Amino acid sequence: MAAQTILFDFTLDAGKTATSIQRQEVARIVRNELEHVFTQLELAYSMESMDNGYFSVLHENKETIITCRIFQQGLLTINVEYYLAAGKEPVLSLDKGKRLENALAKSLQALSGQKIPTLKRGDVARYYPSSVNFDAYERIIEYDIDTLVYEARSPFQKIQILHSKTLGNMLILDELQNIAESDLIYTETLMGRGIENYEGKEICILGGGDGALLYELLKEKPKHVVMLEIDELVMQACNKYLSSICGDVLEKRKTDQYEIIVGDCVDYMKKFIAEGRKFDYVFGDLTDIPISDAPIGECWDFIRTIFEHSFQLLKPDGKYLTHGNGTSCLESLQLFEEQLRLLKPKVKFTTTKAFVPSFMEEWLFYQVTFA
Amino acid sequence: MAAQTILFDFTLDAGKTATSIQRQEVARIVRNELEHVFTQLELAYSMESMDNGYFSVLHENKETIITCRIFQQGLLTINVEYYLAAGKEPVLSLDKGKRLENALAKSLQALSGQKIPTLKRGDVARYYPSSVNFDAYERIIEYDIDTLVYEARSPFQKIQILHSKTLGNMLILDELQNIAESDLIYTETLMGRGIENYEGKEICILGGGDGALLYELLKEKPKHVVMLEIDELVMQACNKYLSSICGDVLEKRKTDQYEIIVGDCVDYMKKFIAEGRKFDYVFGDLTDIPISDAPIGECWDFIRTIFEHSFQLLKPDGKYLTHGNGTSCLESLQLFEEQLRLLKPKVKFTTTKAFVPSFMEEWLFYQVTFA
Repeated sequence: MAAQTILFDFTLDAGKTATSIQRQEVARIVRNELEHVFTQLELAYSMESMDNGYFSVLHENKETIITCRIFQQGLLTINVEYYLAAGKEPVLSLDKGKRLENALAKSLQALSGQKIPTLKRGDVARYYPSSVNFDAYERIIEYDIDTLVYEARSPFQKIQILHSKTLGNMLILDELQNIAESDLIYTETLMGRGIENYEGKEICILGGGDGALLYELLKEKPKHVVMLEIDELVMQACNKYLSSICGDVLEKRKTDQYEIIVGDCVDYMKKFIAEGRKFDYVFGDLTDIPISDAPIGECWDFIRTIFEHSFQLLKPDGKYLTHGNGTSCLESLQLFEEQLRLLKPKVKFTTTKAFVPSFMEEWLFYQVTFA
Repeated sequence: MAAQTILFDFTLDAGKTATSIQRQEVARIVRNELEHVFTQLELAYSMESMDNGYFSVLHENKETIITCRIFQQGLLTINVEYYLAAGKEPVLSLDKGKRLENALAKSLQALSGQKIPTLKRGDVARYYPSSVNFDAYERIIEYDIDTLVYEARSPFQKIQILHSKTLGNMLILDELQNIAESDLIYTETLMGRGIENYEGKEICILGGGDGALLYELLKEKPKHVVMLEIDELVMQACNKYLSSICGDVLEKRKTDQYEIIVGDCVDYMKKFIAEGRKFDYVFGDLTDIPISDAPIGECWDFIRTIFEHSFQLLKPDGKYLTHGNGTSCLESLQLFEEQLRLLKPKVKFTTTKAFVPSFMEEWLFYQVTFA
């Protein structure tokens, strides 16, 4: 089992927490309500801050420790933490927690309040952020993970395969969810299945180490697919633990139908450009955070570098297909589209979207062609 | 803006935290790493517990308060909390938080570690639990909510309409997500669109106050639909704020095609049974937690009561269609199916599933007929 952290927030009328006496009164009410649940409660420590703040530590047998904080803005936070051993009943069950929240809200005459669903800490890592936002906004997602299937550190990143009860095996790279066995819709939306015709076409995949895109593309009878993936270890992990979405395409590095080149895609794109090699489709299926060794500076510079090279590899009627970001990441998507507008020669784009199960949100996908 | 709570967990070799001196050493390492980020850090309080535990409070100008706790099981939790005013830079950005986690894991030689994505407290309530589990397991879900559209308390429950940037308006009853504008798939899977033929059929909906099921069923040209909903206020809220999924069906209480009866469905089912009224389809579209006034005891008794009455209302070849629970709630689903097996006369069932966007998980739906 694990430590349990249960967080409560209450918004109070800020006028009611302006003086030290008022804050003491709020603290008294909180303690009184907590004592209904935690009968052995003791005050261990309290402090006031210059800016009309207050903080205290309460505990029951030093096992359940509760911190209570009043911010000058009228916000009250209460954090309850204890260790729940296997087979033991929780100190604060769902019902008790809910009743405590209601009782506190009432006694405090709170304007609003919430109990955040219990956080479980110290067993398997289950909390990950939603889509990568360049505007520093992240949303917590809790996965129903029951097993850490695989963990290793390659020269490029931390690689984990975690098993979710509902999503199957998930590939997590540097703490970011990439793809799960549940995510055929991701690959199908990325490739525009049923819209694009890949028969007899020449295709280049940048990244794609999980093998799912290559696997689905090969079903559409292309002439040839070349995939440029930097991380050998990712492919080994996916070949072993994600075979339901990548089949056996990662078993071999080269067949008549495809070739997987292990290396930095930027280097190989330059090589292909020098050779005058051209493709009908280029897929951007890289991680959001660049792991390339190339000295390319910031994230957006990297993305633009990829764009520029990709378009040099495309036939005049070729298409560049890639994922964007979660549709909630408006700023990030705008920045992405700005990069597209900076390209020369000019390009135009369409978008599609899909709710990706393991991302637990809707994502936007881009189809870019020469203008 | 809001208070920010950033939680870190580290699993340490329990042998390394067994003595007071060892725990002091862990605390020293933690403080040392924290001081790289929080340069004005001071120790406010610390305590040891009998069971090899340790707890301390550190702070920077009494603004950022950090609690650090070592559990005897070798688990270390660090909780950082501060108020982020509008327009201010976070004290602990995503990058800084990640670097701090890595530095701590390294210095502590942690077996594993995680930084839980930042929790935002005191603005709009954004954290809700996943599907209701009777086994006291809940998963935190953070919604990208930007506005509280509506809030009221009916005699039966707390009703909220919250706006999510990606899911549209969401109906939340007693802190549980019910349906959102994104969730046509929920209604279509519940009714088995494309599988069931409703033309000319007589249908009874138990609950369904959001109006979405009634709205979709009416498109299929049934003979008549009667809907038994207890909460007038839910219907008013949905009529106003969820019209993209319920159309105008909640505007009128009675037409040639349908009738909405505001009352306890158990009472009306008894009345229909007494009258010998029969239906081709009965839909269980009630909330998971009973809000009926009928003295029916526990949750499962309520569910069985609903089943028993529903089957008395069905024609011999009639069908009872209902939602089950999240597919991750195995125990809960098993209990649900046990209730079905207890029914007399005997019934048989099939299931379907769908990933419901606003539930952020896959749900199971049941189709039950006489055996």
